[in-house]
Amino acid sequence: MSNIDSHELNVKDISFINNIRSIAVIGPSKKRDFFFLKNHAEYFKGPLYAVHPTVENIPNFDKKNIFPTLKDIPGEVDFAFIAVPPSKILEIVDECAKKNVKLVTVFTSEFSDSGTEEGIILEKELLKRAQNKVRILGPNGMGLFYPKLGIAWRPQFPTTPGNIGFIAQSGGICNIAIYGANALGINFSKVFSFGNGADLDFVDLLYFLSNDPETDIILCYIEGIKEGRINDLKEVLEKNKKPIIALKGGQSETGAIATKTHTASISGDNRLWDAFFKQFNIIGVESLEQLLNTARLIDFYGIFALDKVAVFSISGGYGVILVDLLEKAGMKVPPFSPSIQDELNLKLYLPGTSPKNPLDLAAQFFFGNAAYEIIDLALSDRNIDGIVLDMPGFYLNTVFRSNDNQSFRSNVIESLYLGHKHNKPLIPIIQRSNQPEERERITKKLIGKKVPVFGDPLEFIPLLFKISNYKRRLK
Amino acid sequence: MSNIDSHELNVKDISFINNIRSIAVIGPSKKRDFFFLKNHAEYFKGPLYAVHPTVENIPNFDKKNIFPTLKDIPGEVDFAFIAVPPSKILEIVDECAKKNVKLVTVFTSEFSDSGTEEGIILEKELLKRAQNKVRILGPNGMGLFYPKLGIAWRPQFPTTPGNIGFIAQSGGICNIAIYGANALGINFSKVFSFGNGADLDFVDLLYFLSNDPETDIILCYIEGIKEGRINDLKEVLEKNKKPIIALKGGQSETGAIATKTHTASISGDNRLWDAFFKQFNIIGVESLEQLLNTARLIDFYGIFALDKVAVFSISGGYGVILVDLLEKAGMKVPPFSPSIQDELNLKLYLPGTSPKNPLDLAAQFFFGNAAYEIIDLALSDRNIDGIVLDMPGFYLNTVFRSNDNQSFRSNVIESLYLGHKHNKPLIPIIQRSNQPEERERITKKLIGKKVPVFGDPLEFIPLLFKISNYKRRLK
Repeated sequence: MSNIDSHELNVKDISFINNIRSIAVIGPSKKRDFFFLKNHAEYFKGPLYAVHPTVENIPNFDKKNIFPTLKDIPGEVDFAFIAVPPSKILEIVDECAKKNVKLVTVFTSEFSDSGTEEGIILEKELLKRAQNKVRILGPNGMGLFYPKLGIAWRPQFPTTPGNIGFIAQSGGICNIAIYGANALGINFSKVFSFGNGADLDFVDLLYFLSNDPETDIILCYIEGIKEGRINDLKEVLEKNKKPIIALKGGQSETGAIATKTHTASISGDNRLWDAFFKQFNIIGVESLEQLLNTARLIDFYGIFALDKVAVFSISGGYGVILVDLLEKAGMKVPPFSPSIQDELNLKLYLPGTSPKNPLDLAAQFFFGNAAYEIIDLALSDRNIDGIVLDMPGFYLNTVFRSNDNQSFRSNVIESLYLGHKHNKPLIPIIQRSNQPEERERITKKLIGKKVPVFGDPLEFIPLLFKISNYKRRLK
Repeated sequence: MSNIDSHELNVKDISFINNIRSIAVIGPSKKRDFFFLKNHAEYFKGPLYAVHPTVENIPNFDKKNIFPTLKDIPGEVDFAFIAVPPSKILEIVDECAKKNVKLVTVFTSEFSDSGTEEGIILEKELLKRAQNKVRILGPNGMGLFYPKLGIAWRPQFPTTPGNIGFIAQSGGICNIAIYGANALGINFSKVFSFGNGADLDFVDLLYFLSNDPETDIILCYIEGIKEGRINDLKEVLEKNKKPIIALKGGQSETGAIATKTHTASISGDNRLWDAFFKQFNIIGVESLEQLLNTARLIDFYGIFALDKVAVFSISGGYGVILVDLLEKAGMKVPPFSPSIQDELNLKLYLPGTSPKNPLDLAAQFFFGNAAYEIIDLALSDRNIDGIVLDMPGFYLNTVFRSNDNQSFRSNVIESLYLGHKHNKPLIPIIQRSNQPEERERITKKLIGKKVPVFGDPLEFIPLLFKISNYKRRLK
């Protein structure tokens, strides 16, 4: 293993992946309708080869790019996706080493993940045959999703390149995250599913993303790391400058056992991870949904410290619930500054409205340009760091509000963009309960302008505090 | 105030509302396009009258049913919805008393809710004029939603009568809950928005729902009660036999202040409420979404104690996350009984699958009738109380799974109904991230069969424990 920029740090350099120019899919399976070949062909623009000892025809795939063995390919191969039976794996990796393939994904399972001695030995042998020349993602992994270069292991993965990197052992977790990205409005730089981590492991990939110019935010789903890697992990974390959001799988007793059967790794003491999260200012979350939504909040609004929150609602009761949730989560809902209160007072003309925080706008939300003006004022208050706003989904039905569609769009919808004008997070809740199609349409529009819409306050309020805490602990 | 079935208990009898036969809307406003009159006309089948001193024509409303004053109406009026200016309210209530109107909603605000002495005096006078003959919901309330009789204060409220009662001061909260009911698959018996609670208050309405044969589950959003009512509340709670799910608004410092401006009630010490919740086995929740979802889980599966949970997933990693969340929330994910393990083993034929809990079904979920058979087996295990199952939303796209639509429907979808066969809760997560239209379609189908679909594990896992705890504490 090569040593990089430190006497002690033991990580493998895979910076070459930003320049992958050619791909071979080894073992495209007719039975699976050439699934992985088709998926890599979907968006990859460079040379793509199929390697199979007997297959001669593949639907919609140029016959000239089918070869019986790797060495028959005339050009270079930077990356290979391998899905052959375990019995064939060693000779294939030998060929990859000879062909100077830089990176392979070994999708094949039944190595150390099987828990059998046979599997463990096979994995060791695999590593030996790679000769520290061929870097391996896997075995039992999905490998690399890299939208900028069009590298994808499943159909219809989103194509927009982004700035969020994601590392997980489990390919299934990656699939859920990647397919969900569009709906959330986030995009990935690279996603790694490293499976058993025989060669490239969590530490190597974290090191890579931490230094990758295409990645600003790092997400991890961690089941465990090998004990010998703890010091390397510490060193990578010490030098890291990017926000890391992490979900530790196997925190519970049964969960810890399950991680051991699912991938063959040492799940490790939870206290070790807790200490790491604290020491290295890692944002720890509880679910995949929280992982993605935390990334989304940071991606949309940067790293913010949200301490003093203004709460807007169209129902006084719902405003109270939001205040309770925000304060219980560690934030404050303070009064507006006196001068802002005076100005707000001039804008609030319906009975029952007063320039208090939480502010119950009631029906005035939908009159003229009240929403826009009031939100603009509130965000200009030095005493306010951001806004949480509730708009019940049923108001998306024109029958239920007093203004027409034109003024709804120009006033209410535009007012939700104002967070970006003031460089303060504004987070709207639009309940999912009603008008699902109209909600979907408006949500897409808002997300396109980097306004993170949620459907339930508990989806994001705990995350606001986590992000704020991260920022406060940065110095 | 009349005393009911106890020497001490001081509650008002409104059991007559189950027999409301005629309604008057007093003060239908042309400016508001006769909003409340139109809404009450939408579904109410009995005689409906409009009372206004000058209005003679109302679009789509029979001229014969418009009267200048209440006393001009020839027939009886059981219920009146009053939306007149505060200056007119006393004479209107006088008329209601003379006409023997049994119940009125006073929508008008600017009584004690205004915080002015004038408003407080007006509210006291209002009560005096009602002579303890006319029961009042409000002022500053929306009143009664009663789908069985077609009584509704807003347009397009759902029409299906249900078994869930809901009490809240805030009308806005009620609106969100009522409009959301369809999407969640729940239906209300009665919803009360009692506003300032000048006459009928939280205690009276709780007493009513607790004894109402049409109500099985009681939901409350509570901002506070008047100190003089605490002993009555205790007595009502002591006799209550139905599950009560409650959200206390104003738990935080700012939230408590906000409840005082929003409605004029004593928010009270949070410790008082905490003690009440414990002493009377009230299920306390944190958000309106939790309130509704707890009701939904109980409505769909009855009151269950879910201690030993089986976890099914198509991604091993996601299964681990679910196990962690379940165990952290107080539940267990134990192994299947040995005999069930043996039987499961015969059904699991894909590599990587084994009869462990959590069970990663991987692609086998979509093969033949595997899902149905395996879930059926797991639910027959005496060692298992219920199932939490994750199906990533992207599998709803036929491109992404190996089985056709026919077998997907007959195997996968049917397997999700099995909870009801075994009388054990089965709760599917279908992520919202992908295929929103197909998800919507399948969700509606499942909800129609009383299978509660969620999109995020944190939406319901804490609620499972709350319901189980309720059941354990019943005896």
